[in-house]
Amino acid sequence: MKKEFVVIGLGRFGGSICRTLAQEGMEVLAIDIDEDRVHEFSNIVSQAVVADTTDETTLKDLGIRNFDHVIVAIGDNIQASILTTLILKELGVKKITVKALNDYHEKVLAKIGADEIVHPERDMGRRIANNMISTNVLDYLELSDEHSIVELMASKKMDGKTLIEMDVRAKFGCNVVAIKRQNQIIVSPMAKEIIQEGDILIVIGADRDIDRFGKSILDHA
Amino acid sequence: MKKEFVVIGLGRFGGSICRTLAQEGMEVLAIDIDEDRVHEFSNIVSQAVVADTTDETTLKDLGIRNFDHVIVAIGDNIQASILTTLILKELGVKKITVKALNDYHEKVLAKIGADEIVHPERDMGRRIANNMISTNVLDYLELSDEHSIVELMASKKMDGKTLIEMDVRAKFGCNVVAIKRQNQIIVSPMAKEIIQEGDILIVIGADRDIDRFGKSILDHA
Ligand SMILES: Nc1ncnc2c1ncn2[C@@H]1O[C@H](COP(=O)(O)OP(=O)(O)OP(=O)(O)O)[C@@H](O)[C@H]1O
Ligand SMILES: Nc1ncnc2c1ncn2[C@@H]1O[C@H](COP(=O)(O)OP(=O)(O)OP(=O)(O)O)[C@@H](O)[C@H]1O
Ligand SMILES: [Ca+2]
Ligand SMILES: [Ca+2]
Ligand SMILES: [Ca+2]
Ligand SMILES: [Ca+2]
Repeated sequence: MKKEFVVIGLGRFGGSICRTLAQEGMEVLAIDIDEDRVHEFSNIVSQAVVADTTDETTLKDLGIRNFDHVIVAIGDNIQASILTTLILKELGVKKITVKALNDYHEKVLAKIGADEIVHPERDMGRRIANNMISTNVLDYLELSDEHSIVELMASKKMDGKTLIEMDVRAKFGCNVVAIKRQNQIIVSPMAKEIIQEGDILIVIGADRDIDRFGKSILDHA
Repeated sequence: MKKEFVVIGLGRFGGSICRTLAQEGMEVLAIDIDEDRVHEFSNIVSQAVVADTTDETTLKDLGIRNFDHVIVAIGDNIQASILTTLILKELGVKKITVKALNDYHEKVLAKIGADEIVHPERDMGRRIANNMISTNVLDYLELSDEHSIVELMASKKMDGKTLIEMDVRAKFGCNVVAIKRQNQIIVSPMAKEIIQEGDILIVIGADRDIDRFGKSILDHA
């Protein structure tokens, strides 16, 4: 069963959601108060409409409550974001995701019943800062406060060694779950797999263990 | 050796980078043209300065070229972002990361020598859209165009089954590399591990295989 989405606010964030959902074959109703932005999306999504979503009648007329999931991606106008969310909630929309600008905005959204609140700039800032700190961490996924999956670049000093020789599990308590080598991905590599300089190791474990492992493989360590 | 960072532009994105870097014990010089924003960060980072970074002399006087990595997080003013990047490059800064607003902005930044160009809103929009599409995918890390690591919620129909009984590897070609259960993380779970409804399975594999596995565990599938 195809899911049906509404995206309100076609800025960079909302626009990117629209494009991705449409690419994946989802039905999307895109709404913005700005005619030019709506026009830009008219060939991308199933339906694109110019509307002010702080107006309850408009949302009702669009049959908004029949959609599975509404995303409110109105940024700078906090008042419009809150009012839109409030109306969506009153109309009985099942799932509402809202972009928040700051902690005050988030608190109000939570109080009026937004199901999911997202902070794109803040979360991407954290992600990018974490990636910048260690020279060899390329990307990461936080599993918990203390566990992550990270991408580490294999150094010169690992070149030619097998995973078993490096003994990552026993020495550091973390695991290499995949290796990216050029355009190839080796999922669950075997212990005898030979590492090449420039391989990207996908490592899972406690942050502290990953950190020790990451530092140990630095060429100047 | 501690790394030294400069963050120019203390909006949501740049501000989040500052906070994360400072929390991780990094030296950060935070710069904004807006005095209030600078004031907000004066107790968070090592040094916070009011300056217009489109002025070359100012950047020179701040000794900008002695820092390891400069992040330009000026958003709406594309011209200021480009001019700042140009000056940083001319001053010989080693590593420059710049936030881009659109494809035109990105093209110009690449041409003038920005080392890394980021699109926080666009990338977070993609990420969130991907998470919304499948009901049971909670989060994901893209390894390549065709491989990912995703978090899948264990359904009722998996409750009480062991990993070996479900035979994920043989049937679907993907692997469960960790399980999140309440506040616990089980890294590299054993084949006899018993799944509980609500467990979050961290699965690695080809997108197509993960998708098949994800669909197979839906209770209504
Ligand atoms: N009441 C409203 N009804 C419908 N759309 C609205 C309303 N108010 C604002 N919008 C639209 O929301 C979109 C996002 O607003 P915002 O000010 O955050 O733009 P942006 O900075 O380009 O977004 P982003 O932060 O995602 O890059 C804009 O296109 C704006 O026209
Ligand atoms: N020439 C400049 N020199 C220094 N700082 C600048 C300059 N021009 C803009 N800034 C600062 O860059 C910061 C980010 O600008 P932007 O307009 O993107 O704000 P924002 O929308 O709050 O950011 P974000 O998109 O990260 O949420 C602002 O705090 C602004 O004062
Ligand atoms: Ca962490
Ligand atoms: Ca903005
Ligand atoms: Ca923004
Ligand atoms: Ca993909």
